[in-house]
Amino acid sequence: MTASLLLRNVRPYAGPAVDMLIENGRITRIGAGIQAPAGVTVEDGRGEIVIPGLVEAHAHLDKSLWGLPWYTNEVGPKLLDKIDNERENKKRLNIDPARQSARQSIQSSLMGSTHIRSHVDVDTEHGLWGVEGVMATREGYRDIIDIELVAFPQSGLLRRPGTLELMDQAMKAGCEVVGGLDPCAIDRDPKGHLDAVFALCQRYGKPLDIHLHEPGEMGLFSTDLIVERTRALGMKGKVTISHAFSLGADPALVDPVIEQLAELDIAIMTTGPASRPAPPVKKLLAAGVRVCSGSDGIRDTWGPYGNADMLERAMFVGLRNNLRRDDELRLALDVCTSEGARVMEVDGYGVSEGSNADLVILPGETVAEAIVTRSPKRRVLKRGKVVARDGVSIRTAP
Amino acid sequence: MTASLLLRNVRPYAGPAVDMLIENGRITRIGAGIQAPAGVTVEDGRGEIVIPGLVEAHAHLDKSLWGLPWYTNEVGPKLLDKIDNERENKKRLNIDPARQSARQSIQSSLMGSTHIRSHVDVDTEHGLWGVEGVMATREGYRDIIDIELVAFPQSGLLRRPGTLELMDQAMKAGCEVVGGLDPCAIDRDPKGHLDAVFALCQRYGKPLDIHLHEPGEMGLFSTDLIVERTRALGMKGKVTISHAFSLGADPALVDPVIEQLAELDIAIMTTGPASRPAPPVKKLLAAGVRVCSGSDGIRDTWGPYGNADMLERAMFVGLRNNLRRDDELRLALDVCTSEGARVMEVDGYGVSEGSNADLVILPGETVAEAIVTRSPKRRVLKRGKVVARDGVSIRTAP
Ligand SMILES: [Zn+2]
Ligand SMILES: [Zn+2]
Repeated sequence: MTASLLLRNVRPYAGPAVDMLIENGRITRIGAGIQAPAGVTVEDGRGEIVIPGLVEAHAHLDKSLWGLPWYTNEVGPKLLDKIDNERENKKRLNIDPARQSARQSIQSSLMGSTHIRSHVDVDTEHGLWGVEGVMATREGYRDIIDIELVAFPQSGLLRRPGTLELMDQAMKAGCEVVGGLDPCAIDRDPKGHLDAVFALCQRYGKPLDIHLHEPGEMGLFSTDLIVERTRALGMKGKVTISHAFSLGADPALVDPVIEQLAELDIAIMTTGPASRPAPPVKKLLAAGVRVCSGSDGIRDTWGPYGNADMLERAMFVGLRNNLRRDDELRLALDVCTSEGARVMEVDGYGVSEGSNADLVILPGETVAEAIVTRSPKRRVLKRGKVVARDGVSIRTAP
Repeated sequence: MTASLLLRNVRPYAGPAVDMLIENGRITRIGAGIQAPAGVTVEDGRGEIVIPGLVEAHAHLDKSLWGLPWYTNEVGPKLLDKIDNERENKKRLNIDPARQSARQSIQSSLMGSTHIRSHVDVDTEHGLWGVEGVMATREGYRDIIDIELVAFPQSGLLRRPGTLELMDQAMKAGCEVVGGLDPCAIDRDPKGHLDAVFALCQRYGKPLDIHLHEPGEMGLFSTDLIVERTRALGMKGKVTISHAFSLGADPALVDPVIEQLAELDIAIMTTGPASRPAPPVKKLLAAGVRVCSGSDGIRDTWGPYGNADMLERAMFVGLRNNLRRDDELRLALDVCTSEGARVMEVDGYGVSEGSNADLVILPGETVAEAIVTRSPKRRVLKRGKVVARDGVSIRTAP
């Protein structure tokens, strides 16, 4: 049981100031002038904004170089260059998934994330090394963050025999989500790939979150095959398409696809990529499609960017989608909070009586200001306990 | 005369550590183990990176809302909505150009910029209010930053009679550069607009820096008209096109234009915009075209983003152009430093013996790491004097 806490003078979503009583990890009362019950710790909110915990809905915890010496990137331009380079150098570079996922989880928590969905590499070179490492972090850091694992065939599923069997073992070992990757462009067998990953979903009763970088008509074709299987297998609400660059194509092609996504409640994950076509966030949300976001890889062999800050990610989503109005910036925040929670099916998420006390307290006059300033002065609560304060975590990175 | 300074143990562009002797605002010696002459202050570089001052080659100092209460943005989606909204609300919102430009200049200096090119609104509603205000800041803050003014017809030049005369007065008053704006899309008279701004350039012997948001074929048409006049009037090397979104169009259309830009040494300014087609930075640099960058508007009635950090801008340029390799990140830094200095024709810019001691010292193992971490722990030197340290300026914002 967690100790109780009275959070005084905070402004939910930059609204009027309230007090919040937190008991057993949940918000039990919200109101003005709540008296602190005997023995309850009081945390002064100083009139700052409070939002529910940021949701990192697409990470790769197993392979960041966070905390390792600088990696000089000289990799070739193609997707397969990056995939092969990483697989071949993972051990040489000492990218231990247990240690690296712990480091990144602490960094995420510092920045205000309380939930992470992490894709984790499964391949014939490293087997379940990644899955075991991230599972150790999932258990070992439960006090600061909730982690969900997606078994992810980063090197391809069918093109490298033995991977499908490893994916099966990963699901058996306790991954929460089945992953997939570019059924046309990487595996060159969209039917085979999708039938295989959907079969895993069926076997383990788990949702799917598939990486789909394929552009234009090719990506829309793969999307159509995903829609078809989602419908046929009764997996409405259980499928996420990550990146979905093809939804950034001509609206004449994309709009009918969006209707299907809405009908089958297929979620979209976008990082707000500056250099690629991207799913139109406002249009998707307006159509009722769940849209979440994530850091994707941070500081890894693919590229040097990233700090696991989902408030910065909200800015990227805003910049990519030309969101300038205050009501639009709020949508960008939703994508990085409540929408992510809907995708991950987090119970009790929010800032209301009865919600989990997974919260971020941060300076700013408005939500939009909080996003554009991205102050490092954040207080992060997990299950009612302050787990990070001004960039210092209660946990020490290994 | 500025006092001398010995900068110990700094790594130019993350290379080997050296000492630098600075006298009279210039770097006079670079080497290992330089002895401090009597009475010379020693600054410990702690083995950090040193780069030349960041160059903010496209700002709007006169109209940021920096330091004012949060402005709730509810503006319409079109360019003219934003133009009209701003012009109509500037006085009501108390956007005093002198005060606001001073605030932003201090913020820029804190972040490491040592040079700013600022477009300044000239319109029939406010006359030369903006120009006078930014000129006051140019004089009053010379100790921390060099500012260059572009007379900018933000509300259009020919569509609002009287503006051209004000532009002429602005140049007479001492603006260093002639500005312009979307000759087709805003003024709807490309020949008239371009003839007028080029005539101002000729009359005052000044360069041109024209905003060109026009997309696709329209923007390439305007570019062609600019090229034609640059050639006819002998203005090679004296023209900058800002934004140049049309260079993000089909390479089959754009590549021949790039050849012309290179031939006439027409520079391109790009912010690395995530939501718009954008000039291909690597290709332009490879063709020999000068490419600079800038914050454009920060926290104004157009949008809430921005903090005047040109190291963050280097990241945006990198993200927009998919620059991932270390050698590519160096290009992004060049765009925000030396390339900007070439566009602004800054004398004595660089980190070598004889250069101005306009420098930034900042943590990081490599240049790429400095860009992706964007540490706030920066020391900024202007003419050999430390003008900012860890986010604190020697000047106080009004
Ligand atoms: Zn990913
Ligand atoms: Zn501008």
